[in-house]
This record gives sequence, structure tokens and C-alpha cells, in this order.
Amino acid sequence: MQYYVGVDIGGTNSKIGILNDQCEILAEESIKTNSTEGANATFVRIWQTAQKLAASQNITVDQLEGIGLGIPGPVVDQAIVKIAANFSWGNDFNAKQLMETISGKPVKVENDVRAIALGEKLFGAGRGSKNAIVIPIGTGIAAGMILDNQILSGSAGCAGEFGHIMVNENGLKCGCGLTGCLETYVSAPGVVREAKRLLSEQQAGEFYQKFANQLDLLEAHHVFDYAKQGDVVALKVIDNFAKYLAYGIGVLLNIINPEVIILAGGVAKSATFIIEKVQQYLPHYALSVSLQNLQIKPSELLDSAGVKGAAALIINKELSQ
Amino acid sequence: MQYYVGVDIGGTNSKIGILNDQCEILAEESIKTNSTEGANATFVRIWQTAQKLAASQNITVDQLEGIGLGIPGPVVDQAIVKIAANFSWGNDFNAKQLMETISGKPVKVENDVRAIALGEKLFGAGRGSKNAIVIPIGTGIAAGMILDNQILSGSAGCAGEFGHIMVNENGLKCGCGLTGCLETYVSAPGVVREAKRLLSEQQAGEFYQKFANQLDLLEAHHVFDYAKQGDVVALKVIDNFAKYLAYGIGVLLNIINPEVIILAGGVAKSATFIIEKVQQYLPHYALSVSLQNLQIKPSELLDSAGVKGAAALIINKELSQ
Repeated sequence: MQYYVGVDIGGTNSKIGILNDQCEILAEESIKTNSTEGANATFVRIWQTAQKLAASQNITVDQLEGIGLGIPGPVVDQAIVKIAANFSWGNDFNAKQLMETISGKPVKVENDVRAIALGEKLFGAGRGSKNAIVIPIGTGIAAGMILDNQILSGSAGCAGEFGHIMVNENGLKCGCGLTGCLETYVSAPGVVREAKRLLSEQQAGEFYQKFANQLDLLEAHHVFDYAKQGDVVALKVIDNFAKYLAYGIGVLLNIINPEVIILAGGVAKSATFIIEKVQQYLPHYALSVSLQNLQIKPSELLDSAGVKGAAALIINKELSQ
Repeated sequence: MQYYVGVDIGGTNSKIGILNDQCEILAEESIKTNSTEGANATFVRIWQTAQKLAASQNITVDQLEGIGLGIPGPVVDQAIVKIAANFSWGNDFNAKQLMETISGKPVKVENDVRAIALGEKLFGAGRGSKNAIVIPIGTGIAAGMILDNQILSGSAGCAGEFGHIMVNENGLKCGCGLTGCLETYVSAPGVVREAKRLLSEQQAGEFYQKFANQLDLLEAHHVFDYAKQGDVVALKVIDNFAKYLAYGIGVLLNIINPEVIILAGGVAKSATFIIEKVQQYLPHYALSVSLQNLQIKPSELLDSAGVKGAAALIINKELSQ
């Protein structure tokens, strides 16, 4: 039997998993990334954790075929992190080389969103599709694209920065420096901000009663939950969210013409509810020909998407399967 | 020596060329498409013209390696025209099969814009690039994309319908049925419409003097010409055109992250002038990381793009070259 290591490296925590060739997680652990220690120290701890997890499953180091790393930021050649924004590892950081030196195993590195897209394409909601776009929505929004059975990385490793298309010329300043980015509306912080704004304007309803005096406790999932229950204020926020998301998806459809769009990230838990609303707006933004035979689906990998996507990089499977 | 046939099939006219393996046109002729005769009659005339042109160059039919067809509309599998909108040839029309039967030669068929993109990538302004987007602007606007050295066709053959991303929610109705499409602003008819509107409002200047009493004669190239000369009204029209085009290019950059954007079609003649203006607006719409190392260039194939692109489909050349 062959086994694989999938690592989802985040700014705060990193998840390490041991997976089989069906991309099933056999053992998993989360450790602090502590990137200020330097990349070498972090990578050594990741490899130690992987070895420990393998041992717990009676898997020898020899049986580990390779390591896949998913990491935020622009990645090129499945090796080099051009800008390690959330880490103190400098630019043009060769994560592949470092992990290969430490572990002695073959390593592939990819932007985390693109790794998730590959995971969904090979083992999740995108199985059997030739052109699939995975859209994780959480703190931000991005698009991982598998086009003609290939991961699209872009020339500088930053394809899929879909959250930064402008949707409102007079909108809010985005963290990226641009104005009115899709991400300022279609993200967990965007939902919370709009909910707070509307709650302070329209002081009525159960949602208002619950959060009026504790706005600081309000999180995006509360807004989705109250919207599902029919609360007028929450519904208005989610409706606006869905409209902007439909605009963004419409842009992707007109340009890329995929057969499947997969919603992932934190909001995937409310995906069915969101998809229904997005479908209502989509005919205003996308050519009808690109809507025919299109499926919009929730993630199947859900919370495991990061680790499974990273492992998918290294599991030997034909992308056209 | 090997030779190739490139055919640019249009709603009114079709251009047929005989090309060498450097994609140089040796002989070329334009014939009426007359699609109402039926596809068989048109394709027979195309093949007769190709044979005649070959003979004029002392090229035997045996020396013709194959035929590339560029055709408007969604094309899948480099064979089937899903919707032959400008022709009376029905849907799911197998253009490859018909032309192979008539000619006895290998045939590849592609959407005309994507064929042009391939031509620019292999033999024009996109040489040596891995990710290139060609944007022909004329009656409409679209994007032909070469991503990771592959033509992106999309799941239903309609990738690149970039002209139909919405840029103004309260904009004009587009021919496609949607509202406020990029194409309603960034196209020759869009430029003419805006120029006429502004000329009737701001009745001054040389441009106004020339066209005030003959608005029907106004064409897009006049507006570009007067703008280059500094006419205030014409400049305002072109500035608005460039702003919308920059928005559209910004969307493409954020999503695709190509290293080269090539402006083609009728406006390519004013490309240098337009590119200068687009560059001014682009930092408002695209992440700076996707602007680094980006080149925006005019078409090199220009008026021959259709025939050369079609021939490029069939010339045996590695796409990664």
C-alpha cells in the first residue's frame, strides 16, 4: 500500500494528514505554524508530525510516497512561493526544495485554493469534470480553476484572485489596496459588516433582539442562520451577498465556461441556501449558453479540503480521470 | 515542402489562404460565404478556391497537409459548431467531418477568436508566452485565451465571451439579451454611438464641424483619429472606451494572470494610443502583482489574423514553443 502526506499550511495553524490513495485521511493533526521560527524549524516539525502520525497507523516512512503542501500566496512551478505574505519566510521561497531536503521525499507545493480545487476535482464535487472552478469563501474569496484537466496557476502564480474584481466603483477600500472589490461584499467579514450596518438602521426582529446589545459577538454564520429562518434583516444581507456572488460567478462563466462551480470554505455549510439565491440572479449576469448544463454544487471535501487538496497534488492519479 | 490551408469563415465573406509552415500567406482570396446555399455548397467552393490558389503557386494538392477553419460561434472538440448563429447550417454542425469528406484532408475547426489567439501565440505578438490573451475589438469584443500552452474552449465551446461581462447595471440592452455588457461600450458601434451622443451635446470643435451634418458617415476610426489629434469630444469618447476596456482587462488579469494581452481587430490600428490610456486606468482594477511583467501589445497578424490563426490550427508546431 502507498500513503501520502497532505499539509495545509496556514498563517496560524498547519494541518498535517496521512492519506491513502483514495485521498481518505487516516490520521490528522493540527500544529502551530509559528512561522517566526523560520521555515526550516516549521518544516522540520511538520515532517516530525507526519512521521509520528504514520507510525500511529503502522505505516513506515518508506511507505510514504510523497508530500503535498498547500500554502496561501502565489506559487509557481509547484515549488516556489513568490510572496509569503502570511509568513516571515521571504519572497521566492523554494518550499519544495526545503521540504525535499528535510524529508527525502518528493514534494509538490501549490497555492492552497488551487490545491483545494484539485482535491474537489479528483476526489470531491468536481469528479469527472473537465473544467471546474472551486470558490472558497471565508475571510476572503478566491477561485481555484481546473481547466482542461490542468491547474491554472497563471504567469506569476496568482491566477484566481477573483475576489479582487471590482464590483462597486464607489465601494469600500479593500485590504489589497483596490476599491470596491468583490471580497469586500462576498466574505465572512463583509457579511458581518453589512449585518451590523442594517441592524443599527432597522431596529426590529428576532435577529435584532438577539444581537442589538452584543454586536461584537455577531459572526457570519449567525446571519446565514437567521436568514434561513426568514428574518428580514438577515435575508436582506444574504440577498445582497448572493447578488454580488452571482455577478462574480457570471463573470467566471462568461470568461471560462466551466461545467461545474463548487462553493467551499466556511459558507459551504450554507451552500444549498446560497446556491438557490445565486441561481435567481445568475441569468442577469451570464450568457444563457454558459448556464446550460452548468452545475453549482457545495464542496464535498468541506473542512478536510485543505489537507485532501494538498495530498491530491502528490497522489498519482491521471487528471483526466 | 508542406503547405496548409487557412480559412476564415464569416457571415458574409470567407477568406481562404495557402500558407507555408512559417504561417506566411502565399496566396489568398475572399469569396462570398452565401451560407443560405447550405454548408455543403459553401465548403465545396472553399475547397475549390483553395485548390485553385495552390495551383497558382505550383503547389500540388498532395502537398497540402490539412485545412484549418476559423468560424464564429461556440466550437467544441475542434470539430463541431454548437450554434451556427450567423449561418443557416443548424446547430451541432460537424464542420470538421464535412470538410474532411469534401477535401480528403485532415481538418481542425475552432472558434475564430480562439484561432486568432493561437495564431498570435505561435506566429505573432504572443510568441514564447505560456499564458496569452488576445482581445479582438470590432463589431464586438471577445477574448481568445491560450493558457498553459492550450487553447481554452470551455465546456460548451463558449469560453472567452468576455464582451458580455456586465459593466453597468443601468446600461444599455445588449444584442445578447443581457444589460450593460462591456461590448456595448468597448466596440466600434459603442464608440460611434457615444460619439454621436456627445457631438449632439457639445457642439464645438473640428470633429463637430466635420460630422455635425453627416452623423451617418461617422465611423469608429474617425473618432480614434480625431482623439489622436486632441479633439476634446473625441478624446472624451476614447477615454471612456479605454476606462471600460481597462476594467475588462483588469478582470482578466485578476482571474487568469497572463503575461501578455494582445489587442486585435479593427481597433488594433490605434492600439498604441489605446494601450497608453488603458495603462493609466489599469492600476485601479487589477492587483499590482498581476501587472508586474505584464505586456499589453498590438496584434502582429493584424488583417491576416483570421487566415493565419485558422492555418495555425493545422500547422504542426508544438504549442509550448
